Amino acid sequence: MMPVDMAEYSIGIDLGGTNLRAAAIDRSGKMLDKIGGATHFEKGREAVLGDIVSAISTLRGKHSSGDLAGIGVGVPGFIRMKEGFITNSNNLPYLENFPVRDELGKRLGTPVILENDANAAALGEKWIGAGKDVDDLVLLTLGTGVGGGIISGGRVLRGSVGMAGELGHTTVVPNGNPCGCGNQGCLEKHASATAVVAMAHMMHLGENLTAKDVGDLAGQTGEVGDKARAIWRSMGEALGIALATLVNTFNFPLYLLSGGVLPAWQYFAPEMLKTLERRSFTFRASQPRIEQATLGNEAGLYGAAYLPWSEA
Amino acid sequence: MMPVDMAEYSIGIDLGGTNLRAAAIDRSGKMLDKIGGATHFEKGREAVLGDIVSAISTLRGKHSSGDLAGIGVGVPGFIRMKEGFITNSNNLPYLENFPVRDELGKRLGTPVILENDANAAALGEKWIGAGKDVDDLVLLTLGTGVGGGIISGGRVLRGSVGMAGELGHTTVVPNGNPCGCGNQGCLEKHASATAVVAMAHMMHLGENLTAKDVGDLAGQTGEVGDKARAIWRSMGEALGIALATLVNTFNFPLYLLSGGVLPAWQYFAPEMLKTLERRSFTFRASQPRIEQATLGNEAGLYGAAYLPWSEA
Repeated sequence: MMPVDMAEYSIGIDLGGTNLRAAAIDRSGKMLDKIGGATHFEKGREAVLGDIVSAISTLRGKHSSGDLAGIGVGVPGFIRMKEGFITNSNNLPYLENFPVRDELGKRLGTPVILENDANAAALGEKWIGAGKDVDDLVLLTLGTGVGGGIISGGRVLRGSVGMAGELGHTTVVPNGNPCGCGNQGCLEKHASATAVVAMAHMMHLGENLTAKDVGDLAGQTGEVGDKARAIWRSMGEALGIALATLVNTFNFPLYLLSGGVLPAWQYFAPEMLKTLERRSFTFRASQPRIEQATLGNEAGLYGAAYLPWSEA
Repeated sequence: MMPVDMAEYSIGIDLGGTNLRAAAIDRSGKMLDKIGGATHFEKGREAVLGDIVSAISTLRGKHSSGDLAGIGVGVPGFIRMKEGFITNSNNLPYLENFPVRDELGKRLGTPVILENDANAAALGEKWIGAGKDVDDLVLLTLGTGVGGGIISGGRVLRGSVGMAGELGHTTVVPNGNPCGCGNQGCLEKHASATAVVAMAHMMHLGENLTAKDVGDLAGQTGEVGDKARAIWRSMGEALGIALATLVNTFNFPLYLLSGGVLPAWQYFAPEMLKTLERRSFTFRASQPRIEQATLGNEAGLYGAAYLPWSEA
């Protein structure tokens, strides 16, 4: 019998806005080890690269008798797959247009796969999460912004450069709020946790609210509850418009939602589904599932670790 | 040397709203034979099936010394791939929920592949048309309605049931004109040849116009020309909104347009590209090509014929 620690494993990295997490995960999806914590992003590129290399080296040291299948790194921002660059990353400006993948590979002495964080999360859900029984799914991450990941035939749909799946910038209100991307009325301006909080502030529901707070307010009676529920219905309608286009485009069996808005599911999902039902005949004809993702914050970590096997 | 008529060939059928066309095409894309003409759709299912079988038999007879790779049939409407059914076909109601694929296969004694007409057209363009140098493209057919076909990794993206690519029902004006699909403000309500003609009639530009007429009017000076050009700019903007979402979603290298609006390209393309440039950062970052399809009405015929090779 092969000792447990001889088994094949992979290392996944999830580089978020404020945290760096790393995990060693085996082929069956069992998390063997996880390390993480705040990273001092303000210290610049060398510090962040050093943190990544150090986290990976620690995990490799602990599993040195195992067989490392590869290393996957999920990062916010656009990926230029061919060059292994990150571009347009609000959180990691100093990693932009720098050969992140090759530099990490050189320091670690082993190839690294770079992937957009929402794409990695979609792959994680496909591997061992809410999407494990399908080969095709779309994930929307509804948090600070809205990210998207498309899994087609079991693999991440990347497009020619590696930028596919930017679903948060689907137009849902053509003359709506301006978005940093240059567009107006993007999904992320109407259905992210940030958008919900902004609506709540504009409607005087309180200060320094989180999306979870706005969800809690929706449970109240009276004017406050009415306003909060109206916000969630509006958010649900925007989501329904975008989902209708996605369902008409892909005809996939599964669409997953994750992120900070999920606790308010009961307040936005009815309007989302009503809108989707009305606006998409493909939805009515094929009855895809619209569900909550199940891996939460771990999805990106699992997906990053799965990349070496997915690409093999 | 192998005699020419011994070469491998395929038969493609394009079943349109008023015409049935059939072609024998060889592996290099050379059209060996083409037959077609009006079909008496009003005579019902048996007549249409008989016409299809007869056209195919004629072509097989003429190429009996060749090696038939397969038969592909492009039809308007949704395809349920697993069952080989057509559903939601406005033009062919009596073919709905009938095992068209298996019935044709039985009568012909050889398997038949059924495909949506816009998907077939996209595949044709990928094979020997404007998309022959790429593996990933989106085609929008802007005619009576707006159809869509998505080619991913060289093959038609079908989705779980076979209904993927219904891009004409992308929402471009959330509170816009009601569409037969249940949605409002669908792309096809704003950018089809039919939509352009409807706008021209509403703006009193004449009666019984075609999209080509409205294109010709745009070349005039004075009030009539101003109105016609405004219509095309509006159409171009709607198209730009939908294309921005498509580019953000797929990050493919090529997006093709075909259909009855193409002669007015010079009047709608500038606004389309301006809108796309502004609304899609992926467009700005990856500079995909937005081009006219090159096979015209033949695209669906070529694509249908290519299906047996594509699926092999």
